[in-house]
Amino acid sequence: MYGRQSIAVIGAGAIGSYYGGRLAETGHDVRFLMRRDYHAVGAGGLKVTSPDGNFTLTNPTIALSSEEIGPVDWVLCALKATSMEDARELMQSCVAGNTRILVLMNGLGLEERFAEWFGPKRIFGGLAFTCINRGEPGYVHHLAYGPVTIGHFQNDPIELDAAVALWTQSKVQVTVSPSLLHARWEKLCWNIPFNGLAVVAGGVATDHIVGDTGLRNVARTVMEEVIAAGNADLAAHSEQARLDRSAVVDRMFQLTDTMGAYRSSTMIDFVEGREMEVEAIFGEPLRRAQFLGVAAPQLTLLTALMRALNAQRYVSDPS
Amino acid sequence: MYGRQSIAVIGAGAIGSYYGGRLAETGHDVRFLMRRDYHAVGAGGLKVTSPDGNFTLTNPTIALSSEEIGPVDWVLCALKATSMEDARELMQSCVAGNTRILVLMNGLGLEERFAEWFGPKRIFGGLAFTCINRGEPGYVHHLAYGPVTIGHFQNDPIELDAAVALWTQSKVQVTVSPSLLHARWEKLCWNIPFNGLAVVAGGVATDHIVGDTGLRNVARTVMEEVIAAGNADLAAHSEQARLDRSAVVDRMFQLTDTMGAYRSSTMIDFVEGREMEVEAIFGEPLRRAQFLGVAAPQLTLLTALMRALNAQRYVSDPS
Repeated sequence: MYGRQSIAVIGAGAIGSYYGGRLAETGHDVRFLMRRDYHAVGAGGLKVTSPDGNFTLTNPTIALSSEEIGPVDWVLCALKATSMEDARELMQSCVAGNTRILVLMNGLGLEERFAEWFGPKRIFGGLAFTCINRGEPGYVHHLAYGPVTIGHFQNDPIELDAAVALWTQSKVQVTVSPSLLHARWEKLCWNIPFNGLAVVAGGVATDHIVGDTGLRNVARTVMEEVIAAGNADLAAHSEQARLDRSAVVDRMFQLTDTMGAYRSSTMIDFVEGREMEVEAIFGEPLRRAQFLGVAAPQLTLLTALMRALNAQRYVSDPS
Repeated sequence: MYGRQSIAVIGAGAIGSYYGGRLAETGHDVRFLMRRDYHAVGAGGLKVTSPDGNFTLTNPTIALSSEEIGPVDWVLCALKATSMEDARELMQSCVAGNTRILVLMNGLGLEERFAEWFGPKRIFGGLAFTCINRGEPGYVHHLAYGPVTIGHFQNDPIELDAAVALWTQSKVQVTVSPSLLHARWEKLCWNIPFNGLAVVAGGVATDHIVGDTGLRNVARTVMEEVIAAGNADLAAHSEQARLDRSAVVDRMFQLTDTMGAYRSSTMIDFVEGREMEVEAIFGEPLRRAQFLGVAAPQLTLLTALMRALNAQRYVSDPS
């Protein structure tokens, strides 16, 4: 369980390449499932620029199918949430009896799907607080932040120790959450208002949202709806943890006020004409709010707009 | 009071040119204040295409300043609401002791301003249900609809008779409203959801809104907020009239369902990069809702987005 592990990175876009690369740096046997960048990385390696130190994997293990990768100790799934329908098939060949799966994706309700497919005990969620873009094929640009919060689907502390051990000595700052569901909702408290408003306000960076009185106020009221929905959902799942409304609001705004012109992943997808992760980030939280009878009028409007914009704007999604 | 009247059209864009043209057709002495189209109309006349009959005013009275126009029986003010700050000065020379003023503009709170400037007794509001665009200089295209509802600022039925008489024999279908404030709010029940969502959903026509389940539902809930705010405002103004929630909702959706791909004026302004009439259509209704303690979370979000988009998108506004 400790020591060198074999790791399949499924979905080697910006997030998968970066975090998989950081694991490879520490000596793990990392195998990347690639599509767009396969030939470029095969020829020139994987090049990462980062404020935490640039690095190049000169000869990484890459594959075009998970059959080539085979069973591993860990699957790091970093697909876009819009590819969830393909996830099971894409990773099935990598999952053996003791394989653990870290779902390094945005949104709510994803681990539930993996738990149905592969059993709940092996499922972890990873929440990356970071800004990473792809560059030309073979290049990944880590721009800022980078910490990852990890939770276990059954909140098992022993399992969490194994997840933390994987990142020992890596340049990634890992913290664990005693409640994965709480961590997911807490991240949504940021992603829903800030990713959402960034898009529907025309494709703007976060400084534009916190610097505009009207947008700042609605970011707060949207966040309060998310907090209310999250607390109802935590209660419905018999979780002890709760989101403290004023503490969460204060922290999210303090964070964002010092963030500068941060371009959220959803906003970048929008302005570049790619499909946005609407159902995982907006649709599923809204469905839970509605199911639990939590009033969420602004989340409702925001979600309807995100869905409408998604239907019009995206052209295709190479990854 | 009856018979041929002198009429100054202040703001001879699409709306002013069309309705002023229809009044000139019936023999009134109509004088157009023009800017963009002055030379084109001077050289070639004002050409109007319309499903109610094309027409050309071959030699209309046009002016570059209201001083040239001088005092008239009626001022028809068809400025964009974004030009309200200029309205008083633009029309002052046309207003004498008995001059009446018809405010043929979108939004709430405009007649109040004219009443402050020129006294309340002479102020009328006109609500145009129509689709009219400007073409090349000298051309106006009336595409569909066209009825005008007229109310008097003090709801004086005698005054309303005079307003109706002006349009006798014209091709414009005029109806009167016993409550101008009620008529304004009723029109907002359409304009706020449909003009607003058309913009924030990316610049779409009305068929897109009524045909998308999510947008259709939020159009209805936004409309319900407007109805609640309108009824509170009517009560605060000691008006008898009220908006019947289910009747208004049903009528607005029936209307819109048969409208086809209607492009609202605000949406056209948005996609063409011009300043949108945000404060008159969204800001003032929201201010009244807030002042009256009416919950309007979706109107709040929509208004914040419209303001943010307006601040970014408009480049200049020739008229």
